[in-house]
Amino acid sequence: MSISAFDHPFLSGLLGDEETARYFSAEADIRAMLRFEAALAKAEAKHGIIAGDDAERIANVCASFEPEIVSLKSATATDGVVVPDLVLQLRAAVGGQAAQHVHFGATSQDVIDTSLMLRLKGVNLLFAARLSAIVTALHTLDRQFGTNRMMGRTRMQAAIPIAVSDRLRSWRDPLIEYGGRLAREIYPVQFGGAAGTLDKLGMKAEAVRSTLSQELGLSDKLQWQSQRGKIADIAGLFSLITSSLGKMGLDIALLAQAGDELKLAGGGRSSAMPHKRNPVAAEVLVSLARFNAVQVSGIHQSMVHEQERSGAAWTLEWLLLPQMAIACGSALRLAQRLIEDIDVFGATTR
Amino acid sequence: MSISAFDHPFLSGLLGDEETARYFSAEADIRAMLRFEAALAKAEAKHGIIAGDDAERIANVCASFEPEIVSLKSATATDGVVVPDLVLQLRAAVGGQAAQHVHFGATSQDVIDTSLMLRLKGVNLLFAARLSAIVTALHTLDRQFGTNRMMGRTRMQAAIPIAVSDRLRSWRDPLIEYGGRLAREIYPVQFGGAAGTLDKLGMKAEAVRSTLSQELGLSDKLQWQSQRGKIADIAGLFSLITSSLGKMGLDIALLAQAGDELKLAGGGRSSAMPHKRNPVAAEVLVSLARFNAVQVSGIHQSMVHEQERSGAAWTLEWLLLPQMAIACGSALRLAQRLIEDIDVFGATTR
Amino acid sequence: MSISAFDHPFLSGLLGDEETARYFSAEADIRAMLRFEAALAKAEAKHGIIAGDDAERIANVCASFEPEIVSLKSATATDGVVVPDLVLQLRAAVGGQAAQHVHFGATSQDVIDTSLMLRLKGVNLLFAARLSAIVTALHTLDRQFGTNRMMGRTRMQAAIPIAVSDRLRSWRDPLIEYGGRLAREIYPVQFGGAAGTLDKLGMKAEAVRSTLSQELGLSDKLQWQSQRGKIADIAGLFSLITSSLGKMGLDIALLAQAGDELKLAGGGRSSAMPHKRNPVAAEVLVSLARFNAVQVSGIHQSMVHEQERSGAAWTLEWLLLPQMAIACGSALRLAQRLIEDIDVFGATTR
Amino acid sequence: MSISAFDHPFLSGLLGDEETARYFSAEADIRAMLRFEAALAKAEAKHGIIAGDDAERIANVCASFEPEIVSLKSATATDGVVVPDLVLQLRAAVGGQAAQHVHFGATSQDVIDTSLMLRLKGVNLLFAARLSAIVTALHTLDRQFGTNRMMGRTRMQAAIPIAVSDRLRSWRDPLIEYGGRLAREIYPVQFGGAAGTLDKLGMKAEAVRSTLSQELGLSDKLQWQSQRGKIADIAGLFSLITSSLGKMGLDIALLAQAGDELKLAGGGRSSAMPHKRNPVAAEVLVSLARFNAVQVSGIHQSMVHEQERSGAAWTLEWLLLPQMAIACGSALRLAQRLIEDIDVFGATTR
Repeated sequence: MSISAFDHPFLSGLLGDEETARYFSAEADIRAMLRFEAALAKAEAKHGIIAGDDAERIANVCASFEPEIVSLKSATATDGVVVPDLVLQLRAAVGGQAAQHVHFGATSQDVIDTSLMLRLKGVNLLFAARLSAIVTALHTLDRQFGTNRMMGRTRMQAAIPIAVSDRLRSWRDPLIEYGGRLAREIYPVQFGGAAGTLDKLGMKAEAVRSTLSQELGLSDKLQWQSQRGKIADIAGLFSLITSSLGKMGLDIALLAQAGDELKLAGGGRSSAMPHKRNPVAAEVLVSLARFNAVQVSGIHQSMVHEQERSGAAWTLEWLLLPQMAIACGSALRLAQRLIEDIDVFGATTR
Repeated sequence: MSISAFDHPFLSGLLGDEETARYFSAEADIRAMLRFEAALAKAEAKHGIIAGDDAERIANVCASFEPEIVSLKSATATDGVVVPDLVLQLRAAVGGQAAQHVHFGATSQDVIDTSLMLRLKGVNLLFAARLSAIVTALHTLDRQFGTNRMMGRTRMQAAIPIAVSDRLRSWRDPLIEYGGRLAREIYPVQFGGAAGTLDKLGMKAEAVRSTLSQELGLSDKLQWQSQRGKIADIAGLFSLITSSLGKMGLDIALLAQAGDELKLAGGGRSSAMPHKRNPVAAEVLVSLARFNAVQVSGIHQSMVHEQERSGAAWTLEWLLLPQMAIACGSALRLAQRLIEDIDVFGATTR
Repeated sequence: MSISAFDHPFLSGLLGDEETARYFSAEADIRAMLRFEAALAKAEAKHGIIAGDDAERIANVCASFEPEIVSLKSATATDGVVVPDLVLQLRAAVGGQAAQHVHFGATSQDVIDTSLMLRLKGVNLLFAARLSAIVTALHTLDRQFGTNRMMGRTRMQAAIPIAVSDRLRSWRDPLIEYGGRLAREIYPVQFGGAAGTLDKLGMKAEAVRSTLSQELGLSDKLQWQSQRGKIADIAGLFSLITSSLGKMGLDIALLAQAGDELKLAGGGRSSAMPHKRNPVAAEVLVSLARFNAVQVSGIHQSMVHEQERSGAAWTLEWLLLPQMAIACGSALRLAQRLIEDIDVFGATTR
Repeated sequence: MSISAFDHPFLSGLLGDEETARYFSAEADIRAMLRFEAALAKAEAKHGIIAGDDAERIANVCASFEPEIVSLKSATATDGVVVPDLVLQLRAAVGGQAAQHVHFGATSQDVIDTSLMLRLKGVNLLFAARLSAIVTALHTLDRQFGTNRMMGRTRMQAAIPIAVSDRLRSWRDPLIEYGGRLAREIYPVQFGGAAGTLDKLGMKAEAVRSTLSQELGLSDKLQWQSQRGKIADIAGLFSLITSSLGKMGLDIALLAQAGDELKLAGGGRSSAMPHKRNPVAAEVLVSLARFNAVQVSGIHQSMVHEQERSGAAWTLEWLLLPQMAIACGSALRLAQRLIEDIDVFGATTR
């Protein structure tokens, strides 16, 4: 199947981004969920809640366990979340007395949200690196063409001449800022248990959560099962990045249309007009900007969680956030290619 | 890869809909695009634009041609659309003099939009059938429980008692109307050539388009390459359907929460609380309603096509419409299951 | 106060539309709500539910009654709707025994939604007339410049030359269709009583509703208190209109930027560059298109009404629909002015 | 006129917020724009660009100048921005040679964006104070009822009992965080001149901008005319606040519906059911959350500015941001009232 253009057999050539997509594969999710279960067992053993041997057994199984996907799929259809069946399968694989201690004190949301945080951490590192490469490429363009002149345009009309460097700065500065934010981003563990109170862990709850977060390289934080500001912030940042790249894409498409101030290598073919070269990457940056600007609304809608946690709001998040990430990844990929395709920018005298 | 929950190895158990998804597979798209190319050749032969033998050759090859997907993918990355490479491959397969006449006078958008219309026609037939099944199931519920009493609630507070039949009608009536709209929907062929003027067909342009539309079982219409009202209407209808099903889902989740007026069979398990049964399908109907209500905004944004046609706006449409269709298909599937799970509704005396 | 640019002391010069705004004034709403109360009394008298003299008294008072706005405002703050206080004030003004029969069997939503329908009917007539004037102006342009040539552009790049007439048709055809839809639109009365069952009217409920709808020139329909498809359809149509006008605006802004194929009279001044003329109306058409494309999402969100009716969803509708109407009205106003400002379009030979 | 419910003669009782609205009045905007012009003259005098006497004259006039609104309105209709006419009027009032130095080197966007920043600074201080009052009120509730028990609910179903304190924390913690962000927010001056390069100020451009920002109590920053991330961040924060308050509102509406764990004083009347009390403020918090979640999409759309600055994107921002602010202000106002209305929360033993 191929509902999403990001995953599609041929559209993904244009719109997909394999490196980002890898973080959202079922395999990556399962591995991260099993990392949670292993780390939880270890943390609970450390604080004397389960036996050390049991924790070791659980962690060992988690390291290589491959759950049956068909079963996960049909169980998710019924349960609304994958975790009950994953835990069932994991318990069967662990076996013996240790099986009882798998997932002890945790709930589905702990597993799924923590898996998401582990993977978003990787995604954001990737994006920070790509932003940095784009900023470098823009610096290179600046050295090459920055002192050239071009027409400054406001309200779509010629205003007064500016330096190419001025335009490049308007593309670059926001990206530098977003890179800084990605680097400073914090990824909290999710651990609250059935209704967010870690009721099964008694006085040791905070200590276990703290150890768990250290095990996973996440930051320690009281559970945030119904408090989705972190998700909205990350989604907002993805959309800021695509919006700023969309602004650059639109500028380049307009420059390519005018034809006298910018030359692009490459460009797409037309099935009707063999002579034509389309600034495809520039256009797609605009599409991805508008796409994420749409989705960010849904993420904010999904913040209205009823009670201790909402199935409806949370499921909505699942439908939106991975796509926003891949749209951001694709935009970063395309932006880099597009900048490298700029052969001429501005005029040396005007 | 599995960016979209609709396609995801395990989440699709909950959120996917295989029957709808089939219409959005790459295979279905390719088959429909080849149907366009075959029908175009035949229509052009009928009006003396290309030779009858060439048209026959083209149509025969189209009937069974399997393009190389890897090539389509890498070409789409460059061209922004799949058609130039598809046509290239098809021409190679057709060979000889007939090869020149493949795709004659058409442009990428003609092929892609017509393929979409062919498939939306099938999708909407499917949805009409499902709506009809849901309406029947609601009628059955009405016969069973319609005279029972329940508390009418306005502004989330108890108002005065109503009949179960009253509530059921508020779920059913909109669905009946949407079914009628789906049945009356019209699917126009797209055929405009390079800049929408069918410049290569001269005086025969309208006749060819008319024959083409008949060949394909679509309605004849002047090209609408930059006029996307039809797409917005269909997307709007998908969202109306999911919104009305979301209203039903929310009602059922609230009834299940209160616990005294409705009993559901089934329900999802919790990983933390074995005793709990979650009204998963009801919640997901709300998620899908809010999802489509978000996406419909993007479809309206994508109507702002610059000039003869916009790559940016059109690509945005590709990112949104298939998902809206599958969200609608999944909601219809879940709604039917949910209604069938209602064991008790209202009270015989109150 | 002036939160909304549509109402703002100076921004409304650009963005407002007084003729449309009149339908959304508090005065117009109050007059329409009083028309409902008067018509209801008459309909109930006709079917023997209240005395004819009482109905006459009520109708007479409604014809000229001016409620105290300060009281309506503070009551709305508490009640969430204006109707309880309006009815209280109206009863005091009617006095005597007839006072008891004011608003008999009705609920707040009946009054407010019916008032909305009465006013939307007027709004849509106005919009149909404006669309018709724009279509005429485009026909005039076509006669003047239609055979001129201009460059057809796809994916923002020069494709092949087209006639100005081709471009004009892509602007005009959707508007003709929307005009037809506005003309065919149906406006249902809202009348359901406390929980939608007209419980106080017994067997006469349908007859009263039918008479009421005739009195008001609306169509008869079972109550739709929680079924908001009609609202979503009208909002969708407003957004289709602004989207198509936004496409035209963007085309004109791009033509004005290129400068060689279109000349506009007028245009806005710049505070920094006295020589510059900005295609302000063209740009604002794009703004209004994107504005309504955003709002349409909220209207679809507001369709998820819980139970017999939702305060939250309904209030959201109030925040969105009037703005969508005025955005549409303003876009129609600006589009007409913009078309009239076109002095030259295309070239006679190329 | 009263297009917006926030400004409406009676709906504003429910949905408006006068204290916030004051910052968005035309008067407040004009005063802030004149502050910009005065500070600009002073900064330019300090750096020897204009004469000290001229700057003094300009500043004196700005302090009390009342422009003609009718003229501003009709000029905005033509120019798309108010500034050219405001400057014209101001120059006439200043008179003499100083008149030439009014607005020297600046452009409309400098004036309007700086005015916005000056006012957003005040708005955010107000919101920070309100958040703090709400947090205090929640602390008071916690002291009063925190150890009471209530049913924890996940996926809308009873899970396990929690303390009232647990639920209160999920409402309070995000608000504390948002208060911190508001306090740390930075408000940059906008000053770029015609095409963002401060071309008229030569080498003194940065020094003037720095002095200007100090004069105004804003932070110094290179112009951001086409870089709207700051606006998107503030809009995002407004929506985070309304989303978190919407979650609280929904929780309270659900608690009020169930009826056994929370008692509210007050509540709205129904026109049909005198016995009923509606949790109006709780519902409206949900409406405002969904409203801002819709608008945030438009703000992200408006980030796609073409070239040095876009009229279309900027105008879209004007249509959205003030409303988001007032929605936030109203939600804060209602939330405080709602919390104070809580008479009983949870049960002492369960």
